[in-house]
Amino acid sequence: MHSTSNPNTPLPAALLEELQNMFGNRLNLSLAMREQHGRDESPFDVAPPDAVVFANSSQEVAFVLAQAHQHRIPVIPYGAGTSLEGQLLAVSGGLSLDLSNMNLILQVNAEDMTVTVQPGVTREQLNEALRHHGLFFPIDPGANATLGGMAATRASGTNAVRYGTMRENVMALEFVTADGEVLRTGSRARKSSAGYDLTRLLVGSEGTLGVMTELTLRLYPLPEAVRAATCSFASVDAAVQTAMLLMQLGVPLARCELLDAQAVRAVNARDRLGLRESPMLLMEFHGSPGGVAEQVETAETVASEQGGEGFDWADTPEQRSRLWAARHHAYLSALLMRPGCRCVTTDTCVPISRLADNINASIQEVEAAGLPYFIVGHVGDGNFHLGYLIDPTLPAEREMAERLSEQMVRRALHMGGTCTGEHGIGLHKQSFLLEEAGEGSVDLMRRLKSVFDPHGILNPGKIFS
Amino acid sequence: MHSTSNPNTPLPAALLEELQNMFGNRLNLSLAMREQHGRDESPFDVAPPDAVVFANSSQEVAFVLAQAHQHRIPVIPYGAGTSLEGQLLAVSGGLSLDLSNMNLILQVNAEDMTVTVQPGVTREQLNEALRHHGLFFPIDPGANATLGGMAATRASGTNAVRYGTMRENVMALEFVTADGEVLRTGSRARKSSAGYDLTRLLVGSEGTLGVMTELTLRLYPLPEAVRAATCSFASVDAAVQTAMLLMQLGVPLARCELLDAQAVRAVNARDRLGLRESPMLLMEFHGSPGGVAEQVETAETVASEQGGEGFDWADTPEQRSRLWAARHHAYLSALLMRPGCRCVTTDTCVPISRLADNINASIQEVEAAGLPYFIVGHVGDGNFHLGYLIDPTLPAEREMAERLSEQMVRRALHMGGTCTGEHGIGLHKQSFLLEEAGEGSVDLMRRLKSVFDPHGILNPGKIFS
Repeated sequence: MHSTSNPNTPLPAALLEELQNMFGNRLNLSLAMREQHGRDESPFDVAPPDAVVFANSSQEVAFVLAQAHQHRIPVIPYGAGTSLEGQLLAVSGGLSLDLSNMNLILQVNAEDMTVTVQPGVTREQLNEALRHHGLFFPIDPGANATLGGMAATRASGTNAVRYGTMRENVMALEFVTADGEVLRTGSRARKSSAGYDLTRLLVGSEGTLGVMTELTLRLYPLPEAVRAATCSFASVDAAVQTAMLLMQLGVPLARCELLDAQAVRAVNARDRLGLRESPMLLMEFHGSPGGVAEQVETAETVASEQGGEGFDWADTPEQRSRLWAARHHAYLSALLMRPGCRCVTTDTCVPISRLADNINASIQEVEAAGLPYFIVGHVGDGNFHLGYLIDPTLPAEREMAERLSEQMVRRALHMGGTCTGEHGIGLHKQSFLLEEAGEGSVDLMRRLKSVFDPHGILNPGKIFS
Repeated sequence: MHSTSNPNTPLPAALLEELQNMFGNRLNLSLAMREQHGRDESPFDVAPPDAVVFANSSQEVAFVLAQAHQHRIPVIPYGAGTSLEGQLLAVSGGLSLDLSNMNLILQVNAEDMTVTVQPGVTREQLNEALRHHGLFFPIDPGANATLGGMAATRASGTNAVRYGTMRENVMALEFVTADGEVLRTGSRARKSSAGYDLTRLLVGSEGTLGVMTELTLRLYPLPEAVRAATCSFASVDAAVQTAMLLMQLGVPLARCELLDAQAVRAVNARDRLGLRESPMLLMEFHGSPGGVAEQVETAETVASEQGGEGFDWADTPEQRSRLWAARHHAYLSALLMRPGCRCVTTDTCVPISRLADNINASIQEVEAAGLPYFIVGHVGDGNFHLGYLIDPTLPAEREMAERLSEQMVRRALHMGGTCTGEHGIGLHKQSFLLEEAGEGSVDLMRRLKSVFDPHGILNPGKIFS
C-alpha cells in the first residue's frame, strides 16, 4: 500500500488505481525499485520508470497493456536486467513490466526436443531442468538472462557458431499486443510456410512490438562427448585465421572464442587461471567420441600451422565450467583492471574473411588513442566485442570511445557486416542502424511498429526515434 | 509490336504504352504466354494475367512496380512456375513479372561461404557454378525452382533436416516495394540484432510484400564423404520410428525421406529401379569419412531394431543421383499410375513424435475413401505429402480429396503442427491459415501487408483474402 501513496508520480490516478486493485503490492513505486528497473548493463545513466509492476500471467500482462494503451503510458518489459544497449531505460517514463515471476517451464517435449517456457525463465534454470532429459538449450550469451529477454534482443553468444541464435531457435510465441490482445505465432513443427513469419518479427524487436508471454524453443541432445581447449597464438591475426580455416573445413565447432592478451590477463587476475597471456582461442567440440576426436585432430593441425602453441585440454566438466565461467566473467574481470571505470562495448559482426582486418584496424586505432581496452570475440561468427575502459569522470574519454566505436562500425558496414551481432540497437546504436539499413528500411520498420503499437507505448525511444 | 495491338486487354492504355516503350518485345500479351504464366503445378485451372513482362534488372522491376502502383494494377512475380498452391494464378488479372532473365550469379564469397544471386538463378545453376569452389547450396525442393521463388515460398525439401530451410539460409535481400523503391535488408554477417528482421518477413511472403531482386545466401562446404542408402520396413510406422530415434540420438542426417509402398511402386515403374515395394527410408549422410561411418553404423543398428531390412547403399555419385532423381520424380511418377489424373497434395508438418499417428490416421482415411494415393515425406522434419490422385472429370473425387485434406490439417493443428511445411498458403490453404494462426494474427498479417502495399497490387488474393 506504500506504493500508491507516492504523490509525485506523473501516472494518471485512474491508471494507478486500476493497477493497485489488480496487483496490490506487486505494484511498486519506490525509488529504489524504480532505479533498479531503469538501468541495464550499459554505461548509460539510470532512467527510472514511474512504477514497476510484477506480472504473474499472460492475463495480467494483457491487463497492464490494455490499461497503458488506454492511458497512453509507456510499458517496458523487464527480465533479468542484463541488456547492454540501454533497452530497459525508461526514457519516457511509464511502467516497467517485470516478468521475472513468470518463470514456469510449462512443457518439455523430450521426443520432439522442444520446450515451452514463460518469459522469466533463465537459461541456467532451463538447462538445469532439461539435464535429466538428456537435452539442452544451447544459446548462451554469458549473463544468466531470461529467455524472454534473450528473444527480445535476438541474443546469441558462445554456442551460436554451431547452434544458431535466438532467431533460429524460437519456434513459437504467445505475445500480448499493445492494446492487450493475446496472440500466438508459429507452432511446434520444425518448419512452416504458413503466412508471414511473425515469430521472427517479434524476435529481436526489443520490446517495441509486443510483450512475449510464452516461448517455445528448440532443444538439442546433450552431446555424447565434449572437449574444450585453449590454444595461444603470437597474434590476434593467427588466432582468427585458425577460426576461419576451421569453419571453411566444415569442422562443426560448438564454440570458438577469441580473447586478446588483455582479456586473458584480466581473467587470470580475477579467476587465477594461469593462462598464457597472449591472444588465445577457446574452443569446444561436441559430438560422438570418434567425431570429437576427429575435430580435435583437425583443430590441432590447423592451429599449429598458424603457429598456435600450448593446446591445453579441459576434459572434465569441472575444468570446462571453470574455463567458461572465466570467459563469461571476462567483462567483469576487465572492469576490475581499471577500478571505477565504465565500459563502452562494441558488437560489430562481419563476414569472417574480413574479421582479422576489422580487429587489427580497431586495435591500431585504440592503441593510437591510448585508451585501455580488451577484446573478446565469437570469432567463428565474425563477431567480436572491443571494450573501451573509460573513466566516467573524464568526458573526453567517453567521447573518444564513441568516436572509435563509430569508426569501427563504419568499417564493419563497409565490409558487408552489421553494427550489432547480438546486443541490439537500444538507445545506443540508432544512428548506426540508419546507416546500415538505410532510411527507407528504417522508415518501413517505423511503419510496421505503428501497426503493432499505434500509440507508441511499447518501449518507446528504442531502435529508432 | 504484336503485343500492344491486342484490343481486348483490360490494362489501361497509358500503362501499356509506358511498358511497351520500356520493354519492347519483352512485354507479351499473347494468350499462350499469358496462359503459361497463369498456372503453376497446383491442380487449379489456369488464371492468365493480362500481360507478361520480362524484367532484366532491379531498375526495370522498380519501373514496372511504380507504374502498376500508379495504375492500381496487380503484379505477380514469376520464376520457374513450380509452386504448388496456386501462387502464380492471376486471380485479379494484371501483370506477370517474369524474373527468369535475372539469372546472374553476382558474387561468390568462397571464404565466407556466401553467394549473392539474382532471383531468376535456379538451384541447379547455382550448384553447378559453386562446385569448383568446393561449396554447395543445400536447399532442394525437388523442382529446379528459382532461388527467388524458393525464398518467396520459404521452400525447403530433402536437405532441410540438416541444413534448414530458406528461412535459415537467406542472409540478405534487395527487394522492390509496391511503389517502386529499391530497399535492402540484412547483410553478409552470419548474425545480427540490428532492428526488425525484414529479411525473414519477406521470406515466405509469396510475392505479397515486395519483389525480391537480389538474394544473399549461406553456403556450405561440400561434404568430404557422402553415403546414401535405402532401407525397407514392414510398416510406415517402423520407418517413421527409425527416423525419430535417429533425430533424438543427434545423428546429423543430411536427408531422411519416406516413400510408402505406392510411391516406391510408382518410381520403380517409371525409373526401373527394382526397389522393394514396401515402405522405405531413403537416407543420406554427410561428413568426414569417419563421421559418416559412425552415422551409418548407428542408422543400421536403429533401423534393424525397427525391423528394417535390406540396407542398400548407393556409394557412387551416379547411383546417388539416380536414387535422388527417382525421389524427385515421385510426384510425376505417381501421376503416371493413374493416367489423366490430377494430384491434390497435402503438406502438414507436425512435431516428430506425432508424425506416425498423423500418417497412420491419414492412410486409414484415404483407404476408407477408396481414393488412389501415395506418400512421400521429409520425415526427419515431421513433414509429409499425401497425394490424392483424382479424376478431374469427377467432382466428387476432388471434393473427397479436399475433405480428407481438411481432416488431416485439423489433426496436424491439434498435434501442434502446421498446415504447410514448405508449399505455402497460396490460394488453397487460406482457411487453414486462419484456423492455424487465428483471426487476430491473420488480421495483423493483413495490416502489415497494407504497410508494404497500400493499394494491394502485390499478388493479390494470396495467403489471405
